[in-house]
Amino acid sequence: MTDRPADTDAYHADATDTGTFDVVVIGAGPPGENLAERTQAAGLRTVLVERALVGGECSYWACMPSKALLRPPAALAAARAVPGARAAAHGSLAVDEVLASRNAFASGWQDDGQVSWLASVGVELVRGQGRLTGPRTVVVTTPEGSERRLVARQAVALCTGSRATLPELPGMAEARPWSSREATSAGQVPDRLAVVGGGVVGVEMAAAWRALGARVTLLARGPRLLPRWEPFAGELVAEGLARSGVEVRTGASVSALRRPDEAGPVVLDVSGGNAVIADEVLFATGRRAGTENLGLDAVGLTPGDWLDTDETLRVRGVPGDWLYAVGDVTHRAMLTHQGKYQARIAAAAIAARAGGAPVDDGPWGRHAATADQRAVPQVVFTDPEAASVGSTLEQAEAAGLRVRAVDYDLGSVAGALLYAEGYRGRARIVVDLDREVLVGATFVGSGAGELLHAATVAVAGEVPIARLWHAVPSFPTMSEIWLRLLETYRG
Amino acid sequence: MTDRPADTDAYHADATDTGTFDVVVIGAGPPGENLAERTQAAGLRTVLVERALVGGECSYWACMPSKALLRPPAALAAARAVPGARAAAHGSLAVDEVLASRNAFASGWQDDGQVSWLASVGVELVRGQGRLTGPRTVVVTTPEGSERRLVARQAVALCTGSRATLPELPGMAEARPWSSREATSAGQVPDRLAVVGGGVVGVEMAAAWRALGARVTLLARGPRLLPRWEPFAGELVAEGLARSGVEVRTGASVSALRRPDEAGPVVLDVSGGNAVIADEVLFATGRRAGTENLGLDAVGLTPGDWLDTDETLRVRGVPGDWLYAVGDVTHRAMLTHQGKYQARIAAAAIAARAGGAPVDDGPWGRHAATADQRAVPQVVFTDPEAASVGSTLEQAEAAGLRVRAVDYDLGSVAGALLYAEGYRGRARIVVDLDREVLVGATFVGSGAGELLHAATVAVAGEVPIARLWHAVPSFPTMSEIWLRLLETYRG
Repeated sequence: MTDRPADTDAYHADATDTGTFDVVVIGAGPPGENLAERTQAAGLRTVLVERALVGGECSYWACMPSKALLRPPAALAAARAVPGARAAAHGSLAVDEVLASRNAFASGWQDDGQVSWLASVGVELVRGQGRLTGPRTVVVTTPEGSERRLVARQAVALCTGSRATLPELPGMAEARPWSSREATSAGQVPDRLAVVGGGVVGVEMAAAWRALGARVTLLARGPRLLPRWEPFAGELVAEGLARSGVEVRTGASVSALRRPDEAGPVVLDVSGGNAVIADEVLFATGRRAGTENLGLDAVGLTPGDWLDTDETLRVRGVPGDWLYAVGDVTHRAMLTHQGKYQARIAAAAIAARAGGAPVDDGPWGRHAATADQRAVPQVVFTDPEAASVGSTLEQAEAAGLRVRAVDYDLGSVAGALLYAEGYRGRARIVVDLDREVLVGATFVGSGAGELLHAATVAVAGEVPIARLWHAVPSFPTMSEIWLRLLETYRG
Repeated sequence: MTDRPADTDAYHADATDTGTFDVVVIGAGPPGENLAERTQAAGLRTVLVERALVGGECSYWACMPSKALLRPPAALAAARAVPGARAAAHGSLAVDEVLASRNAFASGWQDDGQVSWLASVGVELVRGQGRLTGPRTVVVTTPEGSERRLVARQAVALCTGSRATLPELPGMAEARPWSSREATSAGQVPDRLAVVGGGVVGVEMAAAWRALGARVTLLARGPRLLPRWEPFAGELVAEGLARSGVEVRTGASVSALRRPDEAGPVVLDVSGGNAVIADEVLFATGRRAGTENLGLDAVGLTPGDWLDTDETLRVRGVPGDWLYAVGDVTHRAMLTHQGKYQARIAAAAIAARAGGAPVDDGPWGRHAATADQRAVPQVVFTDPEAASVGSTLEQAEAAGLRVRAVDYDLGSVAGALLYAEGYRGRARIVVDLDREVLVGATFVGSGAGELLHAATVAVAGEVPIARLWHAVPSFPTMSEIWLRLLETYRG
């Protein structure tokens, strides 16, 4: 590096290959892909920069492989819960087939399909590590080590996601822990798996590997699982995990790790409790912004920070209209579907500004990612499933709303009893009493994930309760829970 | 009868036991039960008259037993469609257990539970055949043959449902056909079952008995199954039935029947096709109003007719505010959930009129059953399931709306592929282009029934497409079909 000029701009003027585009997108996970597709479709020439696999974390190490692991045991459990089908579904899960199916859903960790799709929508792909070197300017270090300078006439969008973090604990390096990546891609079932973290990744991976035969201990620091959810969600999910044979320990903090023999087990010291001995340990305890090598300092931002955005997904604190961020990197709502939503909004905003069209960034406007604040849906694919959108009761009260929570036993609805004998589940809606609209909803139970979108439409649509009264659920579906909740609310 | 006076009013003045109530309800199916519960809860003393089982057709011979028959094969098929679970679910359906479970869901055809519930909500039950004898007056002939005269201060509500009809064909009596009652309650699986009728009852019962081992032939007169649905619904359901081994014959009219040997098979002559030989034959070809012995002539109406109602469920053509009808008998929307909806609306209207409160019968008002015209949901529990709400494209066009249908392959959504390998399904929304709202939606595919309620909320809520854009489906659920449909609409 010593023979290079210190001034980054002058330095990058040396980049051998320069290209000018309308839009430069860094990071080809689902948010980056969607944004690039849409700006390109809007007539803005777009280039997408990716240093690893096109398709991102979701396609290879998160949503897709995790659900491919979770669906087979869920389908089998659902059959076993029904009289008459139970006896026909008494066999064991075929572990090799589950793993092979998981590999297929992760496209064998090859991105050919995604690359073809990108080409089909006319987006140029540049492989390599992209970083900002100044306003509207990105330099890509290619896998071969050369550099390419990309200039954006309209916008640069940062879509570099997030990375798993490990707490700083004695013995962490020696323990060689799994992150969510290994937990979703491992090719062998460990005899004993310790899972540290009671959030979504922790509970899903505990369920998945338990179903595949591992003896699983789940260690959650707090008093309950899924701490940001309605309390009953974590309680019912914990009950389901325990029923499947997972040892669930709440209030359990790991203080140190040891793996004295490289080929031997790992030992986790747990504050105020018994140590845990396992063959592998997964840490699912948090994520940090994927912004460390992105050249943020070249535009006055701090590498490693989350990117603060306005409702159009423009990065705050950077002059001009050119820098956007979309997806996990914004820390708005760290979910694939929400990142893709932001991409749709941001692409529309970029296109509007490029064409001098008005920007509609008021609440629920065409160019405002309002749902990030009001109607973020999430489904946890454990058994029972947990699904929520909008605010919990606690969150709504903390936001100063005058609200009422209405609860109903999902297991007392005919559609749920037909779905599974002895169905266990619960539902809650949170009603804003001043506006008489739903601001949140949570459903927990087998197969409850598909119940959620009705609530998402109600919350995002701000449909008045008086009108929801006319939205009749079909009998005998599980969706009849809606009638029960509304009847309970109206008393 | 000759020793009785001819004048019905004078005659019934002789009834030994007279009671005055605020509301008299005839027919204790779900609509009648719900109406009675609600008027009683509104402080109106209510009596419910039932000649057979409290709980009605739905509880004993329709929704509940039919779904109890259909859920076990659906659950087993769902497990078999998932790699890794498939091999574990290779056993056969336990027919005895399915039938026993069905019996339990039909409460063993005993109404004790429903009777207790009625008592718990304070509604008086009178067993017997009720009939109008004049304005606000009902006479009940009890099972013991005595008569009881009931006078209603505020309202009489007719909730007597519908009955299966049989076409007039040569040999019908000799054939001893099943109606929907026998098809949902039979205790033995026939070797060969012929099902006549390609509507909802026909396709569901063909699927159920095929799954239990019968060789089933389904004969539909029209060119396709589910004739009132979007065409692809009937096509995909026919494909699913054929895959399960049902012989599906469209354009097939039965012209005559024979069962020469009482203990032997029945032969169906089919116009322009081969005769069908079966052990039992189900006719699922239509229903008529349950109004034949209801004394309609005493109030100027015609026995046997459907009852024409206004939006508050008041019967048209009868002077005064006292006569209501709810459920199948109105021919508005012959579905349990819609009858219960009408009961909620009618009870509120009766209570408002009784209290001299304003009646809000404008579109979507508190006292108007607007959903009957705009947002009737229905789910067919075959494999694939079919679910629809609102208008089909053809219906919307016939109503003079400027509409566009947007279709999407449900099997290309990640959540569906995770749900079942090789998932086959399709979805359509019908968009009113002038108002930019949904007026209809149809989903066909395994497990698609629970996708429907989101559409019901969108249609009944008249949520603008621009706002639905902010209702993000959670990835990777099947509900992601919503994003695909909206993306396709917006182009």
